[in-house]
Amino acid sequence: MNNLMSFASDNNAGMHPRVLEALVHANRGMAPSYGADEYTAAFEEAVRAAFGPSARPWIVANGTAANVLALKSMLRSHEAVLCANSAHINTSECGAAEAIVGCKLLVAPSFQGKIKAEDCLPFLEQRENVHRAHPKVLSISQATEWGTVYTPEELANLGAFCREHGLYFHMDGARLANAAAALNLPLKAISVDAGVDVLSFGGTKNGLLAGEAIIFFNETLGREFGRIRKQHLQLLSKMRFMSAQFLAYLKDDLWLENARAANRMAALLAEELEGVEQVCFEYPVQTNVVFARLSKNAVAKLQERFYFLIRETSEAKGTLVRLMTAFTNTEEEVRGLADAIRDCKE
Amino acid sequence: MNNLMSFASDNNAGMHPRVLEALVHANRGMAPSYGADEYTAAFEEAVRAAFGPSARPWIVANGTAANVLALKSMLRSHEAVLCANSAHINTSECGAAEAIVGCKLLVAPSFQGKIKAEDCLPFLEQRENVHRAHPKVLSISQATEWGTVYTPEELANLGAFCREHGLYFHMDGARLANAAAALNLPLKAISVDAGVDVLSFGGTKNGLLAGEAIIFFNETLGREFGRIRKQHLQLLSKMRFMSAQFLAYLKDDLWLENARAANRMAALLAEELEGVEQVCFEYPVQTNVVFARLSKNAVAKLQERFYFLIRETSEAKGTLVRLMTAFTNTEEEVRGLADAIRDCKE
Amino acid sequence: MNNLMSFASDNNAGMHPRVLEALVHANRGMAPSYGADEYTAAFEEAVRAAFGPSARPWIVANGTAANVLALKSMLRSHEAVLCANSAHINTSECGAAEAIVGCKLLVAPSFQGKIKAEDCLPFLEQRENVHRAHPKVLSISQATEWGTVYTPEELANLGAFCREHGLYFHMDGARLANAAAALNLPLKAISVDAGVDVLSFGGTKNGLLAGEAIIFFNETLGREFGRIRKQHLQLLSKMRFMSAQFLAYLKDDLWLENARAANRMAALLAEELEGVEQVCFEYPVQTNVVFARLSKNAVAKLQERFYFLIRETSEAKGTLVRLMTAFTNTEEEVRGLADAIRDCKE
Amino acid sequence: MNNLMSFASDNNAGMHPRVLEALVHANRGMAPSYGADEYTAAFEEAVRAAFGPSARPWIVANGTAANVLALKSMLRSHEAVLCANSAHINTSECGAAEAIVGCKLLVAPSFQGKIKAEDCLPFLEQRENVHRAHPKVLSISQATEWGTVYTPEELANLGAFCREHGLYFHMDGARLANAAAALNLPLKAISVDAGVDVLSFGGTKNGLLAGEAIIFFNETLGREFGRIRKQHLQLLSKMRFMSAQFLAYLKDDLWLENARAANRMAALLAEELEGVEQVCFEYPVQTNVVFARLSKNAVAKLQERFYFLIRETSEAKGTLVRLMTAFTNTEEEVRGLADAIRDCKE
Repeated sequence: MNNLMSFASDNNAGMHPRVLEALVHANRGMAPSYGADEYTAAFEEAVRAAFGPSARPWIVANGTAANVLALKSMLRSHEAVLCANSAHINTSECGAAEAIVGCKLLVAPSFQGKIKAEDCLPFLEQRENVHRAHPKVLSISQATEWGTVYTPEELANLGAFCREHGLYFHMDGARLANAAAALNLPLKAISVDAGVDVLSFGGTKNGLLAGEAIIFFNETLGREFGRIRKQHLQLLSKMRFMSAQFLAYLKDDLWLENARAANRMAALLAEELEGVEQVCFEYPVQTNVVFARLSKNAVAKLQERFYFLIRETSEAKGTLVRLMTAFTNTEEEVRGLADAIRDCKE
Repeated sequence: MNNLMSFASDNNAGMHPRVLEALVHANRGMAPSYGADEYTAAFEEAVRAAFGPSARPWIVANGTAANVLALKSMLRSHEAVLCANSAHINTSECGAAEAIVGCKLLVAPSFQGKIKAEDCLPFLEQRENVHRAHPKVLSISQATEWGTVYTPEELANLGAFCREHGLYFHMDGARLANAAAALNLPLKAISVDAGVDVLSFGGTKNGLLAGEAIIFFNETLGREFGRIRKQHLQLLSKMRFMSAQFLAYLKDDLWLENARAANRMAALLAEELEGVEQVCFEYPVQTNVVFARLSKNAVAKLQERFYFLIRETSEAKGTLVRLMTAFTNTEEEVRGLADAIRDCKE
Repeated sequence: MNNLMSFASDNNAGMHPRVLEALVHANRGMAPSYGADEYTAAFEEAVRAAFGPSARPWIVANGTAANVLALKSMLRSHEAVLCANSAHINTSECGAAEAIVGCKLLVAPSFQGKIKAEDCLPFLEQRENVHRAHPKVLSISQATEWGTVYTPEELANLGAFCREHGLYFHMDGARLANAAAALNLPLKAISVDAGVDVLSFGGTKNGLLAGEAIIFFNETLGREFGRIRKQHLQLLSKMRFMSAQFLAYLKDDLWLENARAANRMAALLAEELEGVEQVCFEYPVQTNVVFARLSKNAVAKLQERFYFLIRETSEAKGTLVRLMTAFTNTEEEVRGLADAIRDCKE
Repeated sequence: MNNLMSFASDNNAGMHPRVLEALVHANRGMAPSYGADEYTAAFEEAVRAAFGPSARPWIVANGTAANVLALKSMLRSHEAVLCANSAHINTSECGAAEAIVGCKLLVAPSFQGKIKAEDCLPFLEQRENVHRAHPKVLSISQATEWGTVYTPEELANLGAFCREHGLYFHMDGARLANAAAALNLPLKAISVDAGVDVLSFGGTKNGLLAGEAIIFFNETLGREFGRIRKQHLQLLSKMRFMSAQFLAYLKDDLWLENARAANRMAALLAEELEGVEQVCFEYPVQTNVVFARLSKNAVAKLQERFYFLIRETSEAKGTLVRLMTAFTNTEEEVRGLADAIRDCKE
């Protein structure tokens, strides 16, 4: 793709300059390994400043690790996770939850990637049946894989449902920053305040080199997590570099600046494409992604200049493409894409 | 430890400036994720230049991941690994091999961390007994956890033994660079040339931010490794940064420069301590670590100024300390430590 | 339920007298353990007589073990199984496949419990995507959990599809005997002849005390199975008793006699209920089970005298009940149940 | 071996006639499956009568399952088990604990198969080191694999040690009956009274067709065990037959009668061989097994008439053979073996 303009994923962007600067800064002298350094201590403080005093964060290398080890801390293998069909844990982690937690994923009904509490109820009816995996966690994505966002009310409903039914509440927040930017709310308000027990808090897709944080708000669940992280291949020795990135990310709300930038570009793209005959929007554009149906020919033509993902191919409905923006995208780039799509009129 | 001088581990050092530079360089523009970028392609070429055309490398985040996923590619859960008691997989990975591969580790006799083929033979006698885990891999560390180094002849013997008995040959090369520097041999000569099937090739301890490479020399074993890496939480999205580090590491033999520097500092420390009455060397100093027995009082006094690891506490024999050097250590620092030890005379 | 007449499951019946007799016979003297006895040798011969010379059988304790270990022999954790939503491995084994194989189950569309090859095709499109679990096995149930039966043509189609696409073909034959009886075909014709690689061949539900056989028709897949069975808790020491049961089961086609008896009773029940206004059949009655929709009141009344399973409760459609017959049921018992249902008219 | 007299294992014996009788009795009529039957209820009562009111038993198919699932209930994968080198879980279960629990086994020093508390202490020193698997269970065998027996005082010491250090106490009681018979103490006195949390209580080796019981004395540990048993392939559908066997086994102390018979035969064998020049006893004969060193020639000659296991072959010390007796052995058989050994004089 090297000569193509990428709208494939926000992970096609690099580091934000302030993140890189933090790495340079952290590279001075020796430092204790495995998290006993001062950057990690400061990072933990910064997380508590953002998420409240109950927050206990642990950095891991990537989003799959953040989700799977969050689940590992909440579940034994005979228990199950309720999630949307579109959940990253269900579709995009090569069966890691099943392999590493050993748990079953139970697909709850969802609309535009979002789950409603009442649709989870039937899964709880057979809860005492020893032949069925026992539902123990509700896992949602905020923002969802379709770019949609749960409102605080929707989150509060799900949190109350979990408490009522003895479920742990997990949030895949690989794009929590984008959701917070979209809702114009603090990170805290759409995670711990809604009763989330364990949060996978993304960094990579929004300006880090690598790194996600698993944040425990439920003290009991996090108690053994140091060993779980180590055993599951996620304890990085030069932790100072991971923590330094996150420090830069939280400082002066860099996460918000980046997320807003990315969201704005998706909004611009959607605006530009509004009313264009050959484009059919599949999902409301709320964060940094536009899903649109285009004709097969249009897609082929666009692929000559742009790199993006295809989510579904259908003779009847056209091809569903994912056009994702990153904090590095410029208005010019987005307008260039919009122009190209407009030109695809057959 | 922040006010202490660290001789705790080579992972207390940061990045080499040329590695940091490579990160800066790689941060330009967008790039495809998950290894489809040009840095990764160049890295793969560089590995083949160093290790020969059969080498197929995959980057993972840390040494535990490199070892455990190497084993995962070679073993099913009913099979077993022969290794030394001191092996990192046995003592320092929180049981990750057992948890993630499901395999049994069988501890073969070793001397100074090194295994001899003939001592492995008894483990093969019960190989057809269905009640026993079936030995399938021999895993050695080069350099060993005690800083010792297998000679090419010793490696060739082990390689021949593996071929003769249908064992796969795994090498934990977290410090392969230090071993190569010690032996004054190319990386290739002490790995693939000895019949190693899968190598864990370290980078973090020798100047990278993070990253180790699993290198397959046995084509069949590596065939499914893309999925194994993804499922086991080790596929980093912004792979260009991982690959760029390794490119810098292999370019102009930076790995060798760093390893030589670290080894030289350990040699200097050993030299300085030679003949010092209160110091008893426990292992030959061949790479970048000195193991010495000191009195309890000496250790306590040293800990006021230096940070290092204690490996064993014994009333009778004294305390076994590990003094490890990194590529960043200066002669002055090492002499300072030696002076301090000399001053501990009671 | 002890005062209730059971139509809950065929596993509510005991042993056939000839199976019990075989246990008595096998209880003479000492015998080598773990399958080195003469009963086991004779059992293996009997399986080859029934299924052809490629058959390699291994006895395990129950149906869940038979299915899960069959899958274990065919899959690594990053691979996936295509199965129907109703598959026993998906609904009734407490997530054992996920926990023990680590694999993902992908639910293929099905009708009346049966899968068509063309509906599996979409799952193969993303086969090279490293983020998805890699489909490697098609698993079907013969007879299905809804009591329906694949015809030889349907099986041949699926077998050809598997070969064409590099899938292994697994058959959950917990009730293979009932399917063979229904189709009036030999066991062989509806398993190995259709290209099945590994068969879970049921015994318990059709007259044994306990015991199912995993039969490999694919030599490579079975090669390591002795260790897989042992490690996964299924190697019984006094194997002679397991083998002796199966010998009696295969001798003089006792399996067929029992299956025919059970099927006949379900057919009788269906016949008796035909045209009864308050009964709505949900699935064609082909083996030893009748699924019917009854009103909530009717169900409550029946539960006073009969023990049976409820599969779904729906205000709109009524309650879906499973009425299953065993080889021990008498015509009188079945007529008694039919009379009771008829009397439930509101 | 079919023409050889077996002293290979107590599992070469069949069922006791009263166990067979119980199967015949349990085969009347239909019964609910999966343990909802009256035999299972009565069995649970009988266990509480024998082991006290805290006992919660669950039947599984074999001894490996009993041990591994007991450990599964007590451990997460990042925790470890302290056990003797000779422990069945360590040597004879094909790595099942590692594969199914994912835990590490740490081999504690032992003498004649028995562990002392003080020898476990060093393993607890590194307990807070996140790189090490965390010791959480002490597992001992009563009787041991060498036929030796812990005294009540030794057990009490170990129990106190476990409580003091927050370890769970597991007992592999595959031959608990033989130990109780040897000590002339009730089952309770050498298990729950010593602080055992979870007991694997053997039946198969002492007169059952198949079946072992996992007995929880620690209520918390057993709470989820129904699902653990089901998921790990050990929930037998026709449970009445398993429970009926154990009922017969506990009734009128059949377990004791059988264990005494087997022990008596080993004592007789030891008595007969006492002072025989070419026999060197390796372990004190306390239960139903004699370990003796014989010359290579003697072993070869004996193998013409007898079937037994060889535990070690050594040029210097001779061959270590295991001669195990079962409840079915007669004095004549044992004297025949003793005569044959005596005749092996060179």
